[in-house]
Amino acid sequence: MLDINQQAQHDHTPAYTGRLGAALGETVKLRMRTTLPVKEVKLKFVRVGEIETHPAHEISVPNTEGRWFEAELPIHEARVRYAWQLNLEGDHLNLTSLGLHHSRRGFRNWFSYLAGHVAPEWAWKGVFYQIFPDRFRNGDPTNDVQAGEYLYEGRPVEHVAWEHPVDERGDIHGHYGGDLNGITQALPYLQDLGITGLWLTPIFVSPSNHRYDITDYRRIDPHLGGEGAWDELVEGANAAGIRIVLDGVFNHMGNENALFKAALESDDAPERQLFTWRNEAGKPPYHSFFDVPTLPKIDYRNEKAVQEFLSGEESVVRHWLRRGAAGWRLDVAHMIGAGGTDEDNLPLHRALKSAAREEKADAYVFGERFYDPELALDGRGEDASMNYHGFGLPVMQWLSGGTIFGEGSKMDGVELAEILWDAYHALPPQVALSMFNLLESHDIGRAHYRLAHDRTKFLAAFTLLMGYAGVPCTYYGSEIGLSQSRAGNMPWCREPMPWDEAQWDQDLRAKVKALIKLRKETPVLHSGNLTFIHAEADAIAFMRESTETSGHTARAVVVASRRSEPHQVALNLPTGEWQDALSGEVFAGGTVSLNAAGGRILV
Amino acid sequence: MLDINQQAQHDHTPAYTGRLGAALGETVKLRMRTTLPVKEVKLKFVRVGEIETHPAHEISVPNTEGRWFEAELPIHEARVRYAWQLNLEGDHLNLTSLGLHHSRRGFRNWFSYLAGHVAPEWAWKGVFYQIFPDRFRNGDPTNDVQAGEYLYEGRPVEHVAWEHPVDERGDIHGHYGGDLNGITQALPYLQDLGITGLWLTPIFVSPSNHRYDITDYRRIDPHLGGEGAWDELVEGANAAGIRIVLDGVFNHMGNENALFKAALESDDAPERQLFTWRNEAGKPPYHSFFDVPTLPKIDYRNEKAVQEFLSGEESVVRHWLRRGAAGWRLDVAHMIGAGGTDEDNLPLHRALKSAAREEKADAYVFGERFYDPELALDGRGEDASMNYHGFGLPVMQWLSGGTIFGEGSKMDGVELAEILWDAYHALPPQVALSMFNLLESHDIGRAHYRLAHDRTKFLAAFTLLMGYAGVPCTYYGSEIGLSQSRAGNMPWCREPMPWDEAQWDQDLRAKVKALIKLRKETPVLHSGNLTFIHAEADAIAFMRESTETSGHTARAVVVASRRSEPHQVALNLPTGEWQDALSGEVFAGGTVSLNAAGGRILV
Repeated sequence: MLDINQQAQHDHTPAYTGRLGAALGETVKLRMRTTLPVKEVKLKFVRVGEIETHPAHEISVPNTEGRWFEAELPIHEARVRYAWQLNLEGDHLNLTSLGLHHSRRGFRNWFSYLAGHVAPEWAWKGVFYQIFPDRFRNGDPTNDVQAGEYLYEGRPVEHVAWEHPVDERGDIHGHYGGDLNGITQALPYLQDLGITGLWLTPIFVSPSNHRYDITDYRRIDPHLGGEGAWDELVEGANAAGIRIVLDGVFNHMGNENALFKAALESDDAPERQLFTWRNEAGKPPYHSFFDVPTLPKIDYRNEKAVQEFLSGEESVVRHWLRRGAAGWRLDVAHMIGAGGTDEDNLPLHRALKSAAREEKADAYVFGERFYDPELALDGRGEDASMNYHGFGLPVMQWLSGGTIFGEGSKMDGVELAEILWDAYHALPPQVALSMFNLLESHDIGRAHYRLAHDRTKFLAAFTLLMGYAGVPCTYYGSEIGLSQSRAGNMPWCREPMPWDEAQWDQDLRAKVKALIKLRKETPVLHSGNLTFIHAEADAIAFMRESTETSGHTARAVVVASRRSEPHQVALNLPTGEWQDALSGEVFAGGTVSLNAAGGRILV
Repeated sequence: MLDINQQAQHDHTPAYTGRLGAALGETVKLRMRTTLPVKEVKLKFVRVGEIETHPAHEISVPNTEGRWFEAELPIHEARVRYAWQLNLEGDHLNLTSLGLHHSRRGFRNWFSYLAGHVAPEWAWKGVFYQIFPDRFRNGDPTNDVQAGEYLYEGRPVEHVAWEHPVDERGDIHGHYGGDLNGITQALPYLQDLGITGLWLTPIFVSPSNHRYDITDYRRIDPHLGGEGAWDELVEGANAAGIRIVLDGVFNHMGNENALFKAALESDDAPERQLFTWRNEAGKPPYHSFFDVPTLPKIDYRNEKAVQEFLSGEESVVRHWLRRGAAGWRLDVAHMIGAGGTDEDNLPLHRALKSAAREEKADAYVFGERFYDPELALDGRGEDASMNYHGFGLPVMQWLSGGTIFGEGSKMDGVELAEILWDAYHALPPQVALSMFNLLESHDIGRAHYRLAHDRTKFLAAFTLLMGYAGVPCTYYGSEIGLSQSRAGNMPWCREPMPWDEAQWDQDLRAKVKALIKLRKETPVLHSGNLTFIHAEADAIAFMRESTETSGHTARAVVVASRRSEPHQVALNLPTGEWQDALSGEVFAGGTVSLNAAGGRILV
């Protein structure tokens, strides 16, 4: 928890960091501002395992509070760790990403500079929308999966009416008929909502309704409209200013994939080397996703697998970027590896990312890492990961009083701020700003259901999502109140989107739309630094901050309560005039008391 | 900061961890004790990037407080990360090495189990003594370096009289004549003090007085008595129950080394590949330690370098273990690497450690890692590192009010406990217990000088050293009050040891000896868990704890103040009878107030 009166400041924004992404071998000017009576300031950084110290000299930045110091940081390796040292009369302090301390702190807490790192900044500025294609909109009923059209896991597939609630039977067999054509038709709807990015769960040929068991990675499923519908969607989306991120399932494939079938056919087939064979009682004779026999795990010990899927000249990753995708969300990114394990996970992701960037300089690549992703996110592999660990799961646990597994939780706001901050501060800034933030997804229970359809609480969650550092993504239908029929995670969270507007919560949609607009129009929310400024059992507040070279600081404060009734929260705001960006209500800086129920963003 | 009334407990000691060091593929029984009204307990662990959950079942451990739960942990990789989940009515908690939290916390905070890890437990039970051989004792004046015997860095070396204080001129040129013969003579002295391990700074042929610029890694310097004196020392030390750890300088060699001279002689010499050549203005034409031309850096990109020094059948590492060394302290362990950098640092250390262990099953291998070593200490490379970051530097900074660079510091005890705990809790338990703890060394200012020769403060420091988790090491002479003539680090901290007992502080020596004896006779200090139980500006206290399978818990509490006058500190002790292990004073459990000046250990 940082005090707003923090006596020394450094972050990645222009006043403090000359530029981001300087290449190896270059140097970067860094600055630090302090109101402390410093005698001397030094910049420290790690090189070949040692700490080097460079003196900082004072510079003048008119019309700002405090004194400014500048030093040069040599960018000598992929991730340079640095900190400031402030020498005072009889004392000295270290300024790291954790704040001011008398001790040097561990390197995990030092600032990070990523050499030559190009972040997908377009994504920071936008708002994503996740679509589970079978459930969003049926644009062409002629391409629907027909009842009994084929067997899947030994049982005929089914066609389900749009109005029919998701049931156990249809878990993976029930096809509702949503398709890419439908998404194309809905582009005006999405554009009106303010959406600028789509994440589509898999769209390649696959027998299940979720399509995570891919039969052919290079063909769009004809039941979704095939290549023609894809090209049309890309064209329409481009025109609407919407980019599309695809779902890359590279840990395992579907057992109907020709590569796997060839591997099964003959012991001599070269395709056998794409999998890891084993002989363990009660398990498939090959490594597979959670031992599910239909999902054989790809063995990246084999260079051919690396070439085919990740980094070869004609890899799947490259293929769809060429065909118009703007990036990849990587399914179970933490699992990918060699020999049936997650060994070599990071080098594989580095190869993947670098191929993607060769193909498209601003491709956005992020992994599904359901758990703590810190060690994977050093800037050399994925741009970031889905932010379950450091945002979505704890925020929803705090708001709903329970986990996605239905376990109760009495986590309070103080502990929430602690875990969010712990996850945030240890990431390099461009990674933290590229984290894919979400409250819900096709894998976990819907926010409306978990919040007992309390609209005030949902808006608090949505306000946090729009205000937090990272790329916000909302799940299809939540903007109009779409929920689920019973408790639990998938498949219950995959109800079809209703297109009868009479079923929509129009007021909710208006508020969501206003928050999306606010997010997009407020640059400090895209690229500003993050500090927590308040936490109590039922409320938290954080500040986003970005300082221009001139010394001018833009700030936004995001506050949210988990109560549904009005809840006065006392905040200590920096001096100046503050305005609730949606209601227009004005507050003077200093200690203010405001109703935080439903969440607010002050600018 | 953990409360002594922590409501759930798990650690590495026998009641909670069936055994340490189970091999890959085995399973281990883990237990957790709690006084909370749990409905269900689960063990969670990470496998292939996912969290697996196993149920724990309740077991009976008579005559203990709370309920016990047991579960099986499969040891499926080198470092298994695990945590406990406690389900309560409407709530659930995660128990990690950080304590009880509502959130899952990052993996850094989870418990660690190291597969097949064999810790050098003999070292945990002992007390080390560091000797800088030129300055400890001159056992054979006939082998002394003579004035002008050879040139070093262009200047004749000097012979300095034992009584002459260290001066600028003698920094690296002044030889006092200490030798291995002297150490052998002093074995009864060391044995009487209670010492069980020696760390000798380098003893191989080398032109400087510090011998970190090695000319021949396979010969003992004749000025230290040569091989004969080594064999005699080993024999005598073995008889005295003292083991010897040598100093391995594997980052760089001295420029008089035959390998480097051969490399300089011809562009075609195969030895050229042992170094990294470069062409940079103002720098030697090869990478070297801090660009010092006499210290060419070894390039481990070359497999021959790996074989010669680290892991080959006849490597230097193996050679001296065969000749009687008990382990290696690795000079600038963080710097070792490929191509003039620290690249491949961890794989190289893994190769070194595994060769050392093949040669001697209980070899103790630890690195000089002056800065945060956390990421290097995953149990696969070094056993541990010198604990500058997580013990010696912050403790002495707090006690002395300044750093080794003479910068003032107002760090208080609360922040001290925070940084010590942060460093401790993130290490696997066997690593934390193998950390080489020290207050001072041949590289940094002496404790007596930094503490202004305040004996009470020194005893506080020494009490913390003897009580802390890890292997304690005291620097030659501090037991009798040896200090230095002026402020600073090396060479001032390298004064010769006075052997005229009239110059000794006999009372200090008696107290140091008593603390060493207490450390050795108190098993919970060797292998117990560590928790901080108190911190205020001028005092800290921690508890060491070890629980037998029977449920019986042995405890010790270590408390120290940084004041030299009496300082009453209020502690909350677990119930039971407590006794000051040295004074015999008895306290009942609960809140007690005691004088913490000079440090105390209660058992």
